[in-house]
Amino acid sequence: MNYTQLFEQIKAKKSFLCTGLDSDILKLPEHLQKFDSPVFEFNKAIIDATAEFSVAYKPNLAFYESRGIKGWEDLEKTVNYIRENYPEIFIIADAKRGDIGNTSNLYARAFFENMNFDSVTVAPYMGEDSVSPFLSYKDKWVILLALTSNKGADDFQYFAEGETRLFEKVLTKSQEWASKDQMMYVVGATRAEMLEDIRKISPEHFLLVPGVGAQGGSLQEVAKYGMNDSCGLLVNSSRGIIFADKTENFAKVAGEKAKEIKDEMEGLLKEKGII
Amino acid sequence: MNYTQLFEQIKAKKSFLCTGLDSDILKLPEHLQKFDSPVFEFNKAIIDATAEFSVAYKPNLAFYESRGIKGWEDLEKTVNYIRENYPEIFIIADAKRGDIGNTSNLYARAFFENMNFDSVTVAPYMGEDSVSPFLSYKDKWVILLALTSNKGADDFQYFAEGETRLFEKVLTKSQEWASKDQMMYVVGATRAEMLEDIRKISPEHFLLVPGVGAQGGSLQEVAKYGMNDSCGLLVNSSRGIIFADKTENFAKVAGEKAKEIKDEMEGLLKEKGII
Repeated sequence: MNYTQLFEQIKAKKSFLCTGLDSDILKLPEHLQKFDSPVFEFNKAIIDATAEFSVAYKPNLAFYESRGIKGWEDLEKTVNYIRENYPEIFIIADAKRGDIGNTSNLYARAFFENMNFDSVTVAPYMGEDSVSPFLSYKDKWVILLALTSNKGADDFQYFAEGETRLFEKVLTKSQEWASKDQMMYVVGATRAEMLEDIRKISPEHFLLVPGVGAQGGSLQEVAKYGMNDSCGLLVNSSRGIIFADKTENFAKVAGEKAKEIKDEMEGLLKEKGII
Repeated sequence: MNYTQLFEQIKAKKSFLCTGLDSDILKLPEHLQKFDSPVFEFNKAIIDATAEFSVAYKPNLAFYESRGIKGWEDLEKTVNYIRENYPEIFIIADAKRGDIGNTSNLYARAFFENMNFDSVTVAPYMGEDSVSPFLSYKDKWVILLALTSNKGADDFQYFAEGETRLFEKVLTKSQEWASKDQMMYVVGATRAEMLEDIRKISPEHFLLVPGVGAQGGSLQEVAKYGMNDSCGLLVNSSRGIIFADKTENFAKVAGEKAKEIKDEMEGLLKEKGII
């Protein structure tokens, strides 16, 4: 998917919601446990209920990988299910990979060829040759960690050479490797005011913003500081949508929660004059 | 495995060799392709031929993950094979993971519970809560990326706040999280002279040193600058051992290559007065 197609989808759905499929098997509604693949059954129902309001899905791979082969099967089936039923939706492998060049090549093959993801999250520590193998695929994206939403972000991401903090160095340096058409950045919503600084360096890039909802970030703040003329935001919510209800009604309630967020997003897109 | 057990193994085998099981299916000897699991057959033969000279094995997960479910099966079988036949050997999941706390928890479960690895490589960018979940397992280790062997290491790892470079900040900060009994660092052999600086900050920690052999690093230099009284080094070689020969003799030649390295290591351990 390219930049224009993503923006068109945002305008059509009046939403920039990314629904996080952090489908922890221990937290699924009880009645699903009778199925052969409870996680896949859960994901299917969540996807059908939220696809109208979501422009992206983001499975965090840890929730699948931690279950071994069975988890990988659920992940593959989930990606295929989205592709077949909602081909317009952008799919993110939240994998936070990054290794030396020939090894990152293999990860790129895993996510972009074996599985049909649109994008993968990558950790910047190992630099250019750990990132560039992912960029050799047309219309596939790298989403590079810049400023994360967790407490540990303070340990290294604000480390500063003169006036430049590490996350700013990551933004400037990585723009030498790819344009806004293949690169996004992870910026936590819990640090919404930082979006203003980030927009000075990366005015056009899409930002993937986790941390709204369960982690405490505010959508209004994120839009205020981070939205650009092409929206430029994918705001993720996981637990606040997928685990809003644990009864047989879980999918219906997830759809309602996604719609609530979409309605707020619609208002923000209108305020900005995008729709 | 604890620090003392690892050191005892080094003395017993007169070696600090880590053999990297980067078993790229496209590079296997032709005759193995007839097997149901060519990668596992290859690994078994390599392990049997090199275990006498190796104190650690390090599968890089990309080579397995890139093959989907089949690759995960090969990885699990390989770890089990080492555990059952060579229980003294330290096993490293070269995964370079790192995510927010509750997610790193799941990765820890994957590598330390579902699969019986001794250690996992972790990227430091997201800070303490991305690392600490791996430390809650007794006698299991985090091997944190400090200074890597690839070209991209220059992009961020030398970024400096005053006199302190980022990799040095990673070393000092992470020593607040775990002692030498649960933490090692990745330091590339292509930067052997940097080991001197690293030993000033981390005199006792084990260092996992990739980049000897195919990547050009020198074992003599690594030992000169990096060896401490408990050896303190695991030096990895992958391609130089496992793909030294592509005929039906591949395992025998791999064993010979591992023995050559072990012989050189034995000399270095003697020079240092460790054995």
